[in-house]
Amino acid sequence: MKLTPQQIETFNREGWLFLPELFTPAEIEVLRAEAANVLASNREEIWREKNGAPRTAFAAHKYNEAVAILGRHPRMIEPVEQVFGERVYMHQYKINAKAKFDGDVWQWHQDYATWLRDDGMPEPRAMNISIFLDEVFPFNGALMLVPRSQQHGNIEAGHDTSTTAYPLWTLDNATVEKLAAEGGIVAPTGKPGGMLMFHGNLVHGSAGNITPYPRRIVYLTLNAVSNHIRKPTRAEWIAHRDFTPIEPCADDALLEFARRHRQAAE
Amino acid sequence: MKLTPQQIETFNREGWLFLPELFTPAEIEVLRAEAANVLASNREEIWREKNGAPRTAFAAHKYNEAVAILGRHPRMIEPVEQVFGERVYMHQYKINAKAKFDGDVWQWHQDYATWLRDDGMPEPRAMNISIFLDEVFPFNGALMLVPRSQQHGNIEAGHDTSTTAYPLWTLDNATVEKLAAEGGIVAPTGKPGGMLMFHGNLVHGSAGNITPYPRRIVYLTLNAVSNHIRKPTRAEWIAHRDFTPIEPCADDALLEFARRHRQAAE
Repeated sequence: MKLTPQQIETFNREGWLFLPELFTPAEIEVLRAEAANVLASNREEIWREKNGAPRTAFAAHKYNEAVAILGRHPRMIEPVEQVFGERVYMHQYKINAKAKFDGDVWQWHQDYATWLRDDGMPEPRAMNISIFLDEVFPFNGALMLVPRSQQHGNIEAGHDTSTTAYPLWTLDNATVEKLAAEGGIVAPTGKPGGMLMFHGNLVHGSAGNITPYPRRIVYLTLNAVSNHIRKPTRAEWIAHRDFTPIEPCADDALLEFARRHRQAAE
Repeated sequence: MKLTPQQIETFNREGWLFLPELFTPAEIEVLRAEAANVLASNREEIWREKNGAPRTAFAAHKYNEAVAILGRHPRMIEPVEQVFGERVYMHQYKINAKAKFDGDVWQWHQDYATWLRDDGMPEPRAMNISIFLDEVFPFNGALMLVPRSQQHGNIEAGHDTSTTAYPLWTLDNATVEKLAAEGGIVAPTGKPGGMLMFHGNLVHGSAGNITPYPRRIVYLTLNAVSNHIRKPTRAEWIAHRDFTPIEPCADDALLEFARRHRQAAE
């Protein structure tokens, strides 16, 4: 799967690109079931909201086969290789739960702020990917992006370790207000299976979720191999040290996985 | 201004009706300026979020002329009289701030739960009205409604006095999930000047607002005169005791107010 020259131009200018329903309902059905298993398990790689609801599950591709297949999927890997003009490896892999009723906010931030400070990543040549496992509505905590904010590079930030259960380098209100006055705010929504790609310096956040609809997404970072991290300080399952280029799997690998599992269950 | 028979039928079935851009930009400009004055003042009728940002200002029609004019506006009064088949009085009048960056949630609830318990209102024959002073986006804390939930009548609720600065009779998660499975969730959005009417038993709530866009609305309750409250326990500026039917003002009264003020300033 290849992006068109116009899609790449849009990405370079706006800092994000949304591909609705890139994965089929049958593929997402497999992933939803496996993600539910992951989020229901009890491991140190699963971080929780203050009330105990799961917030994010790290590195489930290390122990869950379907999640691992998605991490090598050509519909995700190839567009990112195209943008960077080189091969990529998995820098971070999360399932973000944004639980129904209790999903907490993610304050406004740039992800590269953390990759630079905590991981020693040389350049913002890593791509954020969000794949929708549930339908993303306007009201269940959709990711909000500030278009073109990546053009400002790495913006001064403060370290928020108190607002939520996940420490972040967050931007102050005046900065967010200025950037939104320039670029506006967009919140891509849609059916399960959509894929959102965005720049490591794109400012983003998400509101809390008080609806009965969970908003689970796979949220991962693909880094250009030449841009591998130099000074990791976080656990290996948060900022990976295996810089091997990803070998894409077959395009139908998720369905093949499902067929194998159905046979095993019969 | 009259609703069509079809609009009334929709209201009776769905429990809500949205009239986009019912007030003009010139009218809203007047109201925004006056609402900003109200929210910036320091009075006991203005309640604040835990961090000090204004949450809601009660009864500003008692001391602000433009706010008072809106409370008698025929574009608001006449449709409600039509639905109830009788004249109405002002039961409650608030400006809800939902401040930029810091606007807090309103948990899922029915307003009639409070009117019944705290005010002794005999029937749910009072209409909630929300008039948009700012643009309501999908992402700055839009009111979310559960269509048709008013058909369940007054639903058992628990008194939440801890989650936010405003005590509410809130519904439990299982109930909200069941109602949303039947009716879905809608979140009317649009330009300043839109007016949303909804039933006193319609289940509603709103998420927090982390965006740089405030979401100020006028939020008021018009009660059928025959349904006046019997056992008020809350302050007079929260649950009004003046049951006099509202005399609508002229349709251009807000513009006339603006003209007088411009002249006075010259």
